[in-house]
Amino acid sequence: MTMTPPAPALAATGQGCRSHAAAYDLIVIGAGPAGLVAARGAAAAGARVALIESNHIGGNCMHEGCVPSKTLIRSAQLMAELRHAPNYGVDAPAGIAVDFEAVMARMRRVRERILRVDSPARLRAEGIELHWGRARFVGVDAIDVAGTRLRFGKALVATGSRALLPEIEGLSGAGFLTNETVFELTRLPPSLLVIGGGPLGCELAQAFARLGSRTLICHSEPLFLPKEERDAAQMVSDALARDGVEVHLNCNIVSVRLEGGRKQVAMIIDGNPSTTVVDEILTGIGRRPAVQGLDLEAAGVAYDDEAGIRVDDFLRTSNPRIFAAGDVCLAHAYTNTAEASGQIVVRNALFRGRLRMSALTVPWCTYTDPQVAHVGLYVRQANAQAVPIKTYTVPMHDVVRAITDGEEEGFVKIHVREGTDRILGATIVGRCAGEMINNISLAMVAGMGLRRLARVIHAYPTQGEAVRQAAQACAQSLAPAMTASSKKSVRMPTSSP
Amino acid sequence: MTMTPPAPALAATGQGCRSHAAAYDLIVIGAGPAGLVAARGAAAAGARVALIESNHIGGNCMHEGCVPSKTLIRSAQLMAELRHAPNYGVDAPAGIAVDFEAVMARMRRVRERILRVDSPARLRAEGIELHWGRARFVGVDAIDVAGTRLRFGKALVATGSRALLPEIEGLSGAGFLTNETVFELTRLPPSLLVIGGGPLGCELAQAFARLGSRTLICHSEPLFLPKEERDAAQMVSDALARDGVEVHLNCNIVSVRLEGGRKQVAMIIDGNPSTTVVDEILTGIGRRPAVQGLDLEAAGVAYDDEAGIRVDDFLRTSNPRIFAAGDVCLAHAYTNTAEASGQIVVRNALFRGRLRMSALTVPWCTYTDPQVAHVGLYVRQANAQAVPIKTYTVPMHDVVRAITDGEEEGFVKIHVREGTDRILGATIVGRCAGEMINNISLAMVAGMGLRRLARVIHAYPTQGEAVRQAAQACAQSLAPAMTASSKKSVRMPTSSP
Repeated sequence: MTMTPPAPALAATGQGCRSHAAAYDLIVIGAGPAGLVAARGAAAAGARVALIESNHIGGNCMHEGCVPSKTLIRSAQLMAELRHAPNYGVDAPAGIAVDFEAVMARMRRVRERILRVDSPARLRAEGIELHWGRARFVGVDAIDVAGTRLRFGKALVATGSRALLPEIEGLSGAGFLTNETVFELTRLPPSLLVIGGGPLGCELAQAFARLGSRTLICHSEPLFLPKEERDAAQMVSDALARDGVEVHLNCNIVSVRLEGGRKQVAMIIDGNPSTTVVDEILTGIGRRPAVQGLDLEAAGVAYDDEAGIRVDDFLRTSNPRIFAAGDVCLAHAYTNTAEASGQIVVRNALFRGRLRMSALTVPWCTYTDPQVAHVGLYVRQANAQAVPIKTYTVPMHDVVRAITDGEEEGFVKIHVREGTDRILGATIVGRCAGEMINNISLAMVAGMGLRRLARVIHAYPTQGEAVRQAAQACAQSLAPAMTASSKKSVRMPTSSP
Repeated sequence: MTMTPPAPALAATGQGCRSHAAAYDLIVIGAGPAGLVAARGAAAAGARVALIESNHIGGNCMHEGCVPSKTLIRSAQLMAELRHAPNYGVDAPAGIAVDFEAVMARMRRVRERILRVDSPARLRAEGIELHWGRARFVGVDAIDVAGTRLRFGKALVATGSRALLPEIEGLSGAGFLTNETVFELTRLPPSLLVIGGGPLGCELAQAFARLGSRTLICHSEPLFLPKEERDAAQMVSDALARDGVEVHLNCNIVSVRLEGGRKQVAMIIDGNPSTTVVDEILTGIGRRPAVQGLDLEAAGVAYDDEAGIRVDDFLRTSNPRIFAAGDVCLAHAYTNTAEASGQIVVRNALFRGRLRMSALTVPWCTYTDPQVAHVGLYVRQANAQAVPIKTYTVPMHDVVRAITDGEEEGFVKIHVREGTDRILGATIVGRCAGEMINNISLAMVAGMGLRRLARVIHAYPTQGEAVRQAAQACAQSLAPAMTASSKKSVRMPTSSP
């Protein structure tokens, strides 16, 4: 990090926003993770910032995403612990009940507490001007919000995404839940059909099954979590089945019909017609960028209904004054990615930065049990890019702490460029895969190869040692002298710093 | 890592062991973590290796240490989860019983499974010659075991440590448990007094209390875990009290007397005499290096009954042919440290290495709930060395995943050299502090400063984000332009790579 101050970007671009009254250095549309990070970063740097929000501060993540789902998962995990109690020598009686109202009350309490960090008062105290209402571009450098025209030097569109709704005959008439409404349930549905086996669908199907709903999950492809590696997805499928979820892969819903207050569902599973009756249906088939109603055309911002706002690697749109960040423009709808993209925009928009989105190392995790976490390249991506790849795998049943904890399901798999110890990516499946993947992200950002990682001493005994064990496997395979089969003479291994 | 092979060490030292029949390149005394790692490493490199063990393979860690205690802690943690179930909306009935026999049976099963990795057959297949019996030096280059004389080019003493027994009037007559016998219990003691508030004492006092024993812990100092930072030790003390442990600090046991099959204990608490009656007493007041019976004098190896075998930073003893590793010579009796020291000895003894023990970055963890993990310098050490230190702290109740999981007790504290972002050390208290400390060890080994760590994207939401939040606090305090209070003009922050 150099200490030389870069030349003032605003002056250099000739926008000279300080010469216009009522103009903002940066207007941010959307107070989700991307927008909040950007507004805060810009305000902290002394920029004049307006933040426009039409619904509530915190975005999808806070209200209908990670935060509520993780509180629910925590209660569900406790139920699973109870069910497995006899394995650990604890005689828990069968049929312990969940007080679903209490579970949901806790979820709301937690959410409200976390939201306090982003309260309007706090944002204002940080120097951000809040505007409530729907934003609409009214020119290349102006936005209308609730009848007020705001001018900007730079703008950021961070409107996020909305749940994609499946087109199934009779579904909207019969009624269904999405991630936006499922957390408003006050009674546990006796039975629940989850449509879609992505992260949201898998997490919530397992959680509701553990909380006591008869749960079915229906996914149109042959395995869940299409983005993840096949053995990882298979483990999630097995885990859901063990938790009592009725798993239907290669399954398409044909129609839904309301009958006696319940939902009659017709589906095709592996080509065969089938029916079932459930109380609730939750859809989680993906998300669509929220590009509607912004009048992006008026600002000359190119977009696409499916892929969202078109941005380059610097997150610039087709209007040089306007940037985008988060779900509205990115392929991966993750909170951490949204936040990182918000930071990039502050730097690139206000400080002449040239930070590239593609330079980020972003880990993610699906919080089923076991969790599935990933960072970097997948094998199929390496193959597509003709990058020679080698994988070192440690099953969790070879890791001391996983054995003592009875959490042996899963593995650590680290991919390196063949013949080297350079980490290209990793997939971890395990009870605390999300925590463990942070370690690999850190090594990747540090440029630490697996030979060096093999010598990083880990706390003993931890599940994280699996990462070091995988690194050791790599180090050994790259140092043939150390694995010589001849025992007759002392071979000299390469020296070590 | 350079690829130049170092010159053969054995030839260079003039020992030329290959010219003596029945001589070993390396004889290792003790098949605990240090000895096993060294024997395996040397054998894999092609050295002729003998491994002498008088009791059982695996050492204290495997039989009476980490492995059995962690299985017990897992069952105890489940009981604690049950007790807190209503917080998560689960109506678990009170009075769920532990089947202590089943808990201990599981512990033995787990231990046997983990031990298989170190079975004699497996060690022999790796090229290690196993000798059973007590080893005794019979010269500067020879050892007697069960009447057989073995000659060595180099030897490693890795005999570990034994539980230190307290000198308390009547204690041995009344009978007591140590870590070597507590795992042989088959019935849960209705009441248990733990003497000593170090890691072992705290871990087991909490575990037995959670499993249902009326548990007292008595510690002679004003706070537990004397090595750890005071606020961390305080949190453990609070946690034990909340779990129903009767915590007695500044407490010394005066005498023990058997009465009606139970143990009458007289003690002084804060200067006041007090008595209690318990069924069992467990002592965990520390460990002593196992230096007896080796005839170290015959080999010219200097030692001390309390500090163990004297070694230099290269782990060489006063006999240039003989090295030591693990608890028998190190200040910290940790499994990971023992293993790392065993690796150093292979390199230094057989391959002319100059690896220093002091160069290692070793994290450790006490597996109470919350866990207390540490790596690097403590504040008091920095003060003693006149190193200017600054600490960045993030309480776990400011970390999203800790809040959603209801695991808000604890903190991440990272110490840096004042005015810089160079990590000197860290203490973490939290439900998964052991996993999280691995991240900081890795950053320290990579030489990654907190400014860079602040930009490492973590999986969201994970408790490990606390580490990044602490790094961000440091990055912000070191970049004053980013925290300018003036909002009138855009300040230029320093550029970022």
